[in-house]
Parts: sequence; C-alpha cells; structure tokens
Amino acid sequence: MDLEQIFAVDEFEELARAAMDPGAFAYYYGGAEQEITLRENIAAFDRYRLRPRVLRGLSEVDTGSTLLDAEVSLPIGLAPTALHKLAHPDGECAVARAAGKYGALQIVATYSSYTLEEVAEAASGPLWFQLYMNADRSITEDLISRAGEAGYGAIVLTVDLATPGYRTREYRNWFVPPPEVGPANFTVGEGAIHSSVSELVANLTGDGYSWSIVEWLRELTELPIVLKGIMTAEDAALALEHGADALIVSNHGGRQLDRSPASIDVLGEVVEAVEGQIEVYLDGGIRRGTDVLIARALGARAVFIGRPYLWGLAAAGADGVARVLDILQTQLVNGMLNLGVASLDEVTREHLA
Amino acid sequence: MDLEQIFAVDEFEELARAAMDPGAFAYYYGGAEQEITLRENIAAFDRYRLRPRVLRGLSEVDTGSTLLDAEVSLPIGLAPTALHKLAHPDGECAVARAAGKYGALQIVATYSSYTLEEVAEAASGPLWFQLYMNADRSITEDLISRAGEAGYGAIVLTVDLATPGYRTREYRNWFVPPPEVGPANFTVGEGAIHSSVSELVANLTGDGYSWSIVEWLRELTELPIVLKGIMTAEDAALALEHGADALIVSNHGGRQLDRSPASIDVLGEVVEAVEGQIEVYLDGGIRRGTDVLIARALGARAVFIGRPYLWGLAAAGADGVARVLDILQTQLVNGMLNLGVASLDEVTREHLA
Amino acid sequence: MDLEQIFAVDEFEELARAAMDPGAFAYYYGGAEQEITLRENIAAFDRYRLRPRVLRGLSEVDTGSTLLDAEVSLPIGLAPTALHKLAHPDGECAVARAAGKYGALQIVATYSSYTLEEVAEAASGPLWFQLYMNADRSITEDLISRAGEAGYGAIVLTVDLATPGYRTREYRNWFVPPPEVGPANFTVGEGAIHSSVSELVANLTGDGYSWSIVEWLRELTELPIVLKGIMTAEDAALALEHGADALIVSNHGGRQLDRSPASIDVLGEVVEAVEGQIEVYLDGGIRRGTDVLIARALGARAVFIGRPYLWGLAAAGADGVARVLDILQTQLVNGMLNLGVASLDEVTREHLA
Amino acid sequence: MDLEQIFAVDEFEELARAAMDPGAFAYYYGGAEQEITLRENIAAFDRYRLRPRVLRGLSEVDTGSTLLDAEVSLPIGLAPTALHKLAHPDGECAVARAAGKYGALQIVATYSSYTLEEVAEAASGPLWFQLYMNADRSITEDLISRAGEAGYGAIVLTVDLATPGYRTREYRNWFVPPPEVGPANFTVGEGAIHSSVSELVANLTGDGYSWSIVEWLRELTELPIVLKGIMTAEDAALALEHGADALIVSNHGGRQLDRSPASIDVLGEVVEAVEGQIEVYLDGGIRRGTDVLIARALGARAVFIGRPYLWGLAAAGADGVARVLDILQTQLVNGMLNLGVASLDEVTREHLA
Repeated sequence: MDLEQIFAVDEFEELARAAMDPGAFAYYYGGAEQEITLRENIAAFDRYRLRPRVLRGLSEVDTGSTLLDAEVSLPIGLAPTALHKLAHPDGECAVARAAGKYGALQIVATYSSYTLEEVAEAASGPLWFQLYMNADRSITEDLISRAGEAGYGAIVLTVDLATPGYRTREYRNWFVPPPEVGPANFTVGEGAIHSSVSELVANLTGDGYSWSIVEWLRELTELPIVLKGIMTAEDAALALEHGADALIVSNHGGRQLDRSPASIDVLGEVVEAVEGQIEVYLDGGIRRGTDVLIARALGARAVFIGRPYLWGLAAAGADGVARVLDILQTQLVNGMLNLGVASLDEVTREHLA
Repeated sequence: MDLEQIFAVDEFEELARAAMDPGAFAYYYGGAEQEITLRENIAAFDRYRLRPRVLRGLSEVDTGSTLLDAEVSLPIGLAPTALHKLAHPDGECAVARAAGKYGALQIVATYSSYTLEEVAEAASGPLWFQLYMNADRSITEDLISRAGEAGYGAIVLTVDLATPGYRTREYRNWFVPPPEVGPANFTVGEGAIHSSVSELVANLTGDGYSWSIVEWLRELTELPIVLKGIMTAEDAALALEHGADALIVSNHGGRQLDRSPASIDVLGEVVEAVEGQIEVYLDGGIRRGTDVLIARALGARAVFIGRPYLWGLAAAGADGVARVLDILQTQLVNGMLNLGVASLDEVTREHLA
Repeated sequence: MDLEQIFAVDEFEELARAAMDPGAFAYYYGGAEQEITLRENIAAFDRYRLRPRVLRGLSEVDTGSTLLDAEVSLPIGLAPTALHKLAHPDGECAVARAAGKYGALQIVATYSSYTLEEVAEAASGPLWFQLYMNADRSITEDLISRAGEAGYGAIVLTVDLATPGYRTREYRNWFVPPPEVGPANFTVGEGAIHSSVSELVANLTGDGYSWSIVEWLRELTELPIVLKGIMTAEDAALALEHGADALIVSNHGGRQLDRSPASIDVLGEVVEAVEGQIEVYLDGGIRRGTDVLIARALGARAVFIGRPYLWGLAAAGADGVARVLDILQTQLVNGMLNLGVASLDEVTREHLA
Repeated sequence: MDLEQIFAVDEFEELARAAMDPGAFAYYYGGAEQEITLRENIAAFDRYRLRPRVLRGLSEVDTGSTLLDAEVSLPIGLAPTALHKLAHPDGECAVARAAGKYGALQIVATYSSYTLEEVAEAASGPLWFQLYMNADRSITEDLISRAGEAGYGAIVLTVDLATPGYRTREYRNWFVPPPEVGPANFTVGEGAIHSSVSELVANLTGDGYSWSIVEWLRELTELPIVLKGIMTAEDAALALEHGADALIVSNHGGRQLDRSPASIDVLGEVVEAVEGQIEVYLDGGIRRGTDVLIARALGARAVFIGRPYLWGLAAAGADGVARVLDILQTQLVNGMLNLGVASLDEVTREHLA
C-alpha cells in the first residue's frame, strides 16, 4: 500500500473494511437504528458554504491552538474510541505515535486495548482520558488517579450513554471480540462478561448517572473536566452551572439516539449558550480540511475525528493514522490559505455564507 | 425463520411479500393514485430531529400510558385493518394474542375475518371496535351493541372514507378474496357481493355520511367515540363540537386522498385545535421507536401501526406480530433513555429541533 | 390493448412511444434546452398538499363548470397541439369525438391535420380555436371568420411564441412530417416550406407581434379572446388592459423558455393580478385528478391537458383519448369525494396545506 | 465529427475526454477536494427561474455589449485557462480565431502555450491578458509591457490563488505535461521546474500577495485592471477602494476552495456592493443560453466560459470552439426572444422569479 497515493481520508474506509474482521468493522462503522444521524453528521457539512477572501498577503498559516492547557499543532484531535486492537495489534499506542508526530491531542478511552500508562509511554503529544463511570466506583477512582499520574491533562466524561444505542448494524453482525483486545485498564469481573462490545460497555458502565457525577468528579480530581456528548443549549447551560471546563458537542458518532441532529447543526446553539466562558469542541462528520474551517467558523475551538483514524489504523497501523492526519493537515493549510486566514483565530462566522 | 434475528420492523415487509398472495399483498401495501402520501407518511419522520438531553439520572423508563380508560404498557396500538385472514389463518385472533402479551391496545375492524366476539375471546389486552357504517343501519346498531357486550372499550368511527380512494396498485393487482376470509361479523347480502376488497367496502359502507352520524352514535351507545381520519384543525374543532372523545390523526395509510400531507405533518395543527380537551392519537408511517417519540413530542398520546403488524402476521402469525411489538418496545425504551425522559409525559415540543 | 386495464394516464406515454415514429414522438415529447421546465411542470405538483375534510355528507359530486359561455362536464379541456395525424390518422376528429363524449372543451390548433370545419363536424362538445398569426394576415382573417361560422366559441391566441424554443430533443431527432399530416386549414406557400414542425411554425407564424394584435383581433371578431401563455402578473395586468376575456397560464409545455417556472407555481400570482375580472385557466403538468384540485384551489377555473391525450390518441385513437378523460374524470370524482367538496366552486385555497 | 449535429455544449465534454490524455483531461476537469463547488457552479443555475414576458413586438434581438472599452457581439467571453496545447496543437491561437468569428472577448493566460504576441496575431476580436504575478517581478513587468504593445485591452489579475487548491482529482491522475506545451511567454527557470501543472503554477507564481499589488500594477500600466476571483461584498468594496476597473465573480471553476458558494449565488452581493461604479462579470457554470440571462438579471455585464470551450478545442480545434460559441449564441438569441427582451440592457431582476 502506497500511503502517499491516498489523498482523501474517505479512501481508508474501504481499506479498513478489507483489513478487518467484518463484525469488528460493523461495530466501528455502524450507528443507531436507521443510521440517519450517522449519515447526517457528514451530509450536514455539505450544506455549509465558505466565503473566500482574497489578497490577504499570506505566505503561510498557523494551524496551532491550545485546548485548555495543551498546546497543539493541529485543531484536529483523536476522539476516544474503544478497543483499538480490533483495528490493529498496535492499537492505541500506534495512534499515540501518529498523533505525537502531528502535534495532535489524543483522547484515550476507558475501554482501551492498551493500558493508559502504555499509551502515555508511546505518546509524545498531549493526552486526555475519556471516562465511563464503572458500576464499581472504586475502579473509576483508580482510573482517574492513574490518569493524573500518567500525565493525562483532562478527564473527558462521556455523558450521552444512558445505555448503548439501538445499533441495528451491530446486532446484524454479531461479534464477540477475542479476550486479548481488552479492555486493558482493569480486570473485567465475572458479572460483566460480555458477548458483544456494546454489551460489555452496558455491563460495565452501569446507569442512573446524573449531573451529580460532575460534582463528584470535581471533588476527586484537579484535572479539568470535559463533558462529551452535549447537544443542546439547555445542557450546555447545565454544564456551566456544574463547573465543566469544556464541552464536546457530539452525538456519539450517530451511535446513540438516531434522529439526533448532525453535531455541526447544533454547534451554534451550544456555543451561544456558553457565551465564551468555556471551550467548545466538536466531533462527528469531520472528513476534510474545510470541515474543520466550518466548525471553527461556528465556534468550535477544535474538532475530533473518530472513524477516519480507525480506518487508517486498520489499514496501516501508525503510518495509516499518520497519513490521515497528514491529509487533513495539508487540506487545512490549503483551506486556510484559500479562505484568506493566517491563523485559526481569524476564522469567524462572517466566513460562512 | 429466526425471529430473534430480525431487528427492524421494515424487514418483515419482504417476508410478508414472500408469504402472501400477490393480490392480497398489493391490497395491503398499496396507496391511492401515485402513492405520494403513502411514501410521505414514512419520509416525513426523517425530517424531524430529536434533541437528546444527558445526565438525567435514568436507570429505567416507563412506557405505560392510558388511552381514554384503557391502561396500556405501550403507547403503540394496532390500527384497524380489514380481513386478517388475508395475511394468516389465525387472523385477528393472532394479533390479539400478541397485543395482549405487550399490553398494547388493538382496534378490531368492522370487516374482520373473525367475529368481534372471537377476537375478544383471544385477547388479554384492551380492545376498541372500528366502525364502518353499514348501508343497513340495523347491522350497525347490532355491531355496536355486540361490541359493548364483548367488552370493547370504545367505538372508533372511520370518518375519511367518503368512498374508497383511487387505488392504482389494487386495480393493477386485481384480487378477489376467497369467501372464507370474511367479513365475519355479519352476513353479506346479495346486493353487496364483492369482487375486490375495496368494492366490498364501497358496497357495504354506503355513503352520504355527515357529522350527524356522530350524534346518532352518541345516542346509541355510552362507549367513548373516537374519530379516525381527522387531518385538519377545522375538522378537529368540529369533532369537539360534536362530542368526540378522542381523535386519530390519519390519512388512512395513504389509501384515500393522494397528496394529503403526511399525518405527522398535520398532527401539530390538530393538537393545537383541540387545546387539550380530548386525546389525540396518530397513525401513518410509524416504523421505529424514535417515530413514537416524535409523535409524542408533537402531542400524540399514542400511535397506531398498520402495515408493520400485518407483515409480522403474514410472516409468522402471532409470533411475528409479537416480534414487531418487541422491536418497537425495545427501540422505544432505548430512545427514551437516550432522549433523557423517564416517562412519556416528559416528552415535549422542546425535544424537537 | 385492453384500455380498461390502464389506470393512470402516464401509462399511455410508453404505448405512444411504441406506436409512433420516433421523430414525431420526440417532437411531441420534447421541451426546450435541458427540459428543466418540462420536468418541473410535473414535479411542481408533487410539492403541493391537499387538506381533506371529512363527514361532508357527500353521495355524489358535480364536476361541471362553465368556461366563458361554454358548459362543460369536466374542468379538464384539451389544449391545442399541432398536427394530430402525427399521432393517429383520425387526428383532431378522434379527439373531438372523445371530448364530446366526456363533455370536455377542445381547443383546435391553427396547424391542425383536419380543417377546423371537419373537426367541428366530428365534435359534439364545445370548441375553441387556437390562433397563430400568419405572416399573411389575410389568412388569419379568413381563419377567424371560418371559426366563427363553424361554431367555435372563442379565439385562443398563443402569445408565448416569439420564436419556437431551442428544442434540443427535436433537433436530435430530426423529423420531416409527410405532407398528408397538414396543416390542413390553408395552403402552405412555397416560402414556408418546412423540414421540421418547428421550422414550419416559425416560417408560417411570422414575428414581431405585440399587444396591438389583441386590439386588432378585437376589431375583427366578436368572439371572446383568450390569451394562452401568460406567466406573470405584469402580463396578466396588460391582458386585462387590452381587453382579453380569459387567460391560460402556460409555459407552452416547457417548449419555449427553459427555466421558466412550472405553470402551477405562477398560477397564484396571475389569479391575484386579475382580481376575478376574467377567468384564468392552466395547462402544464396535469396528469391526475388531484392535480386538477390543486389548480382549482389556486384559482384556475379549468385546466387543459396536452401530451396525455396525444399519447392516448397515438395508442388507440378516439378510444385512447376517451380512456384518458375517463381516468381523469374518475380520479377527479374520487378526489372531490375524499377532499370533501360537492362542486368545484367549493374548492378553495384553504384546501391547500 | 459533424459539429452541426451537436446541440448542447455539454456534449463536447465526452468528445474531449476521448480526445485527450487522461491526465490532461483530469487537470482541466477537476476541482478542489470533493468537487462540491465544481458541481454547485452548474447545479445552482437550475434553482433560478426566468419570468417570460410576452407580446413584446420582437423580431430580432441585439446580443452586443461593451466590456470596458471593448465592443463585443456576445456577452460571453473566453476565460483564461492554462496551456491550451494540452487540448489541441493549435492552442490559444485556435481559440482566438473562433472568438474573433463570434465577436467574443478572449482572456489569454499568463501560462499560455503560445506567446501573447502569437495569440494577438491570430485574433480578430478583443483580447485581455490574465496575469499571475511571477516570483520574479521583472518577468511580470515584461509581460504587462508586452501585453500593452500587442494590443491587449486590460490586465486581468487572478486574485484567488494564494496557493493552488487541494485538487484531489489532479493528484490521482498525476500528469507531467510535455515541455512543448509551454508556458511560452517566458523561460521557466530551473527553480521552477515542474512535474504537474499545479506545481508549475505554484512554483512560478510565488505567494504573499496583497492588495498592494493592485496599486503596484496601477503604477505600472495605464491598462484597465480587472480582478478575477472576487466572491464577497467585502472584497468587492476593497477592490473599489484600490481602484479596480472591473471584477470577475469567480471561484476559479471550483478549483481553489471547495465549499465556496456557486459563483452565481454570490453575484448579487458583489453587484450590490459595487453600486454600479464598475463592471462586474461572472464565470463558473455557464453551459447554456439561459444561464447567461440569469447572470445578466443578477447584474453581470458579461459571463465567461472555461471548460466548455476547452472541450470544444480538444474535440475539434478552432471549429469546436466556434461551435460552442455558435450554440450559446443561438440559445441566447432564442432565450432573449422568449424572455421578451430586445437587448441585454432590458434584462432585470424582475425577470427572475
């Protein structure tokens, strides 16, 4: 495979399909119910238009930014996704190596195939830790403590999983992951034995979580707390009230409530609701450089990709992830030059038609 | 057939097509003229978006409700459809058994393949009786009296059949049902001999009905009267005026006036017109759990399904109908958890984007 | 061919394609440039929705109306189209026989294959005469005089042919009609020898016509003058000013200016402009009964069909045209019953969503 | 090839594809990233509707206009495109001969396959010179001086190429043009050796250009300065401020910033911003006569075509380009007659629905 001959991240999807177990591929690929939201996440971007400005005297542009305290070279991070060994034996460590090469922030999942410490070892860029609460809270406390010690810069609490969505495609492609894919961060008790990945998540994660968890977390750690899965102005306001340090606008890649809006379509209302008090990021549907500019114009400080890097990982390990980031970086630089902005801070709502 | 391997009610359509006489299938499947309204009933739902709320502290949800006096476990009832033996020898009795298992309300049709008493015998859940006026009013009076004695909880008068619609597909797939499919509730006179189902309905039902029928019915029975087929605010107001106890917003599954709006698209205006004085239900296009949530958000107390359960019945009898209800229940529970509502009463217009 | 097994007028299109010379078919079928307006005429109707009213006490409905002084049983007339022998040897006479059977008004074209007197002989229903000005005005004067004598009830002046449109499909299917198809109403001079139908029309019709023609016509005849081809409020106002007795909203079946709006989409502005002072009709895209109801709701007193009856004529002569009218009549009656109107006058804007 | 049997300029695309090297074809054909803007340029025209006026007394129409000082017979010019020998050995000279025949203005590119003097020699119509700044400004100064001496009537500065767009299709069809295709206007230095056309442009053109270039140009030449690539009201205002003599609304044929709006969709805002002080033209998506009328109605004094004439050139040299212009002229004349305008100045916003 000549990675240099790949010029769009979409191309990795078919390579990954060929490389992966069909059940594992379906698990990553699929969304909830009819996958309306899954498709909308991508399609919605095609309804936005960018207004290019000319003769701006640009020779080069700066794609750098900060996410909370982390300095990044790209406003494109790697969203948390489970069990990377399903895609490639090098799993999250390969992702970490690629992310580091491009100065991109990686969010490592609670249900990772490598321990959070192993990933930290492989990483040279900033890391955040994604948290699913465990039915056994002592496990959660342990994870948070270890994340802090391993140098993770924030806790990203996933708030949109009251239960795993109704994932038709996963049900139709029933898949029991082999034990060696993990999760690695803790021992899975007998009571949480799983047959599918969603069942594992359901069994381990427990339920009944409310806003009080945010307060509980705040007591437990001094790390910034990022809430992932906010889709409404109302919940953004509640997040502010409960002391969240940042938000990720996300519908969980279309995997939770089908018929949720595309995340890009609600970004504006969330940004407006937080009134600049905390940072807002977005995931869902990012596939090319101009997507990043649209999200930025609507107020997202950064975006995160999920499936695109998983496909890169499945196709070619760390090199595949690196090529995904390389393409997006090149497209972003090109887009900034042709939009007429020297830095991300120059991108505003006036750049949207 | 492993019903457990079916995860979306749409899948039953092809199974039914394979199991049924093509003419009978076309009769159930088809709509009026170009079937624009038939398709719109389903497509319209895809234009609505649900706004998921997070961290609502939910462990479980309650899908129960009341429809007039009936307690139901699901806000998804079984709409009246004719001559169930066209789908399966067990007909309406099989539907009744499945409905009872899920605590769903069944509306039994005037033109049923089993007598209303036979269905009542098979049922364990609540039953309502759908009424087509007979040209011979003594037959109608007899039916209403028998329905009351058999424990039916309401009379559902179909008001949108001034004449059967122009059903192109039915005409192209001319089908004469065998005598044993019924109708069973009364003897069909010589003058109403039918060659197609629509002709039967046209011949038996008579015409010229006006709002005075509602008053005539009110005199005749103490059962609540539900009007099925209201599509405008104006007729909703007239229904109130004439003492209807509840309404079903319906375009008769796209079988009457083609180019009628999707029923979900007019639900709002009907709900607004009744100002909460009576209950409003909806049929037309319900295929998955999130459809129910959209209808509920727009003010429908419950929804009814038609073709989906007929396909289940044709494919696998009572078990097929049960699986249809099981899928919808599972999707509804999942949708409520991920929308962030503990009960149906919590679903509001604010849940729609 | 069992005409009784045809249930939608669209079906005649393929029958006509099989029956006709490909060049003649292309001449009838085609529109201007990319045929955007041709397709829009039909597609636009699919964006309108009818609001059905119920319990209106209807047993039957009245589809009758008057167009100027003519009493018609159907509000669906036959638009003027050229050289019917291209479709069938019985040409305009066959159309006249079918129209008479259904009480429909026929507009006979200047460029007809039978003389206007021959058509009048065959007709039992009302006739109007469509006029293209001839470069030789004495021919035009003669035609008007003969039309009056033959009992035609109005002159329908086509106003939208400054020159025949850029008809790509016609150019690609070059077709020289045989001499026997006509035109029959007058002798075609050497100077107007044609190779294609559009060239014939261009050569004979001349150019440079302005509103003064309407005044010239008014002097020449006491017959009502109907202007066919009005697409704007501005021209409707001018038509009033110049004493037109009625208008036909039409884009010439999409054959003149491509990217004109669908005629149904501008009907409203024309109706509003004439303020009820004269009658307004519509052609373009009528294919089924509910189309007629939509046009009526927007203010058209009647509609005219073109290609549908040509396809019927090509497929089966007078019987084919009759079946087209029969289908539309049946659909219209059905539509009126299910819309809840007893007569065409009851159809209003409130019937549109 | 019988050019007279071609009736739509789109048809030349497939002829050109067959005639050209696939890599060269891909270079011309392709757009940026996902080619959304490339497709939108064409698709956007299909959303506009023209309002035809009737009985305007037209016998003929005048398609003539002036562009700055140049008199043209057509408001359809030939946009600058690079290296015409990629399409045909006669290159820009063939284009000049065809343009002259139809009185159309040609803009010759800096990166032409023939020298600007050779093209001027072949031309009989008006010429403008498109300018890319050279990293070596003395080359630019020389080009401008030579253009003035050779009779070019204006300098058209391309302002929307901060860097060549991310051209996925070009990358996938890597193509190294043979040395004989040029560019011919100057010697390409060792430092600018290219492997693809975009690389050539990138290497030669340099970067960092700002509005001060316009002032520098103004000092250098008395020729009018036209800015090509303005897409916003803001940049139109800056262009006025910096003394531009005319603007071309253009997104570079969808080759620079993907997700830019269709050029026709922003024409209105640019026209409004310049308040009639300077002329505004448009390129992007012009494929037929009615496109020209839409652009004119929105305020464009003239339009330019790119790919259409390249396809004509590739298919049949000067004769192919001539046929493209002939078709557009015929469609334009036909469109004006059927829109009801005698001259281009009569086309106004009121002609749009």
